[in-house]
Amino acid sequence: MSRWKPDARGRLEQAALELYRERGFDQATVTEIAERAGLTERTFFRYFADKREVLFWGQSHLLELYVNTIANAPASASPIEMVAAALEAAVPIFEERHELAQQRQAVIDAHRGLQERELLKRNALAAAMANALRQRGVSDTIARLAAEIGVIAFTTAYARWVSAPSEQDLSRLIRESLDQIKAITAGA
Amino acid sequence: MSRWKPDARGRLEQAALELYRERGFDQATVTEIAERAGLTERTFFRYFADKREVLFWGQSHLLELYVNTIANAPASASPIEMVAAALEAAVPIFEERHELAQQRQAVIDAHRGLQERELLKRNALAAAMANALRQRGVSDTIARLAAEIGVIAFTTAYARWVSAPSEQDLSRLIRESLDQIKAITAGA
Repeated sequence: MSRWKPDARGRLEQAALELYRERGFDQATVTEIAERAGLTERTFFRYFADKREVLFWGQSHLLELYVNTIANAPASASPIEMVAAALEAAVPIFEERHELAQQRQAVIDAHRGLQERELLKRNALAAAMANALRQRGVSDTIARLAAEIGVIAFTTAYARWVSAPSEQDLSRLIRESLDQIKAITAGA
Repeated sequence: MSRWKPDARGRLEQAALELYRERGFDQATVTEIAERAGLTERTFFRYFADKREVLFWGQSHLLELYVNTIANAPASASPIEMVAAALEAAVPIFEERHELAQQRQAVIDAHRGLQERELLKRNALAAAMANALRQRGVSDTIARLAAEIGVIAFTTAYARWVSAPSEQDLSRLIRESLDQIKAITAGA
């Protein structure tokens, strides 16, 4: 029988989130995480570069998904429609992880350094979407603005979704945020 | 005659910006900055907590101005109008410092850690504006979104203003950004 465990990443992630909440992010050690997951430290480092990456490993996947969705959007789509399609494409990733997302958020809310890291992540995602829009022929300024609006809409929707005790429809919340942004700017 | 120099802060700032550009932000020392400004290190530390604060000392003033402008906006103003008024109120601060702003931007563009600090600053300004809007009775979500839209509009306008070789009308650029955001979201 193989010693390979199919869900080592998931077990490490769950163990890490528990320990970050119980002992605080700074106090928890990789040794403890691996032990709780029933795995070795070496296995931990096969999946994650460090303790922080447990919370942010999804970023590159998300970025790729956003960029590909914009690259493949129909030519008739407006910039904000391309961005909305990108955000929409990522919804299933979040929706199958509502409880993990809540645990992760509690860890981040308790740690200033992690909040800053989350902010940098959002900035990187906006920059990637803006770049994908430029490659679709959108002008530099409009590409930047549309990407930033998308990130704001998502961030606001996500904050509502993650803080709700039971799972809500994240797609609907994103569309609501976009509608609210439209209504707010219409008042200018 | 008094040894007090009326514009010590300005001389230190100018000397620091020159040195950050010549030698790189990380390499320049407070000793060198004070020397070039013809002042003592002790004087430097009377104005700035550290090398980085030379680039960010205006943040608290800006924050106060934004918050006060929103607090004093007419009751008839919409949330985005309150935010636009706040951004507008700060324009004179920037317009009398176009050349310094360009030097500062070159320093920040060359240093990833400073770019992250700038991002945190923008986030703090958005949070302060959102809070000021809530105190004007604006709902939590709308306050957040309106403040974030304002920060995006300003950031985009500022990037155009600071990179232009000759000084342009920053107020006009901010209004243009807000109009562009309106047009982008209308296409959703």
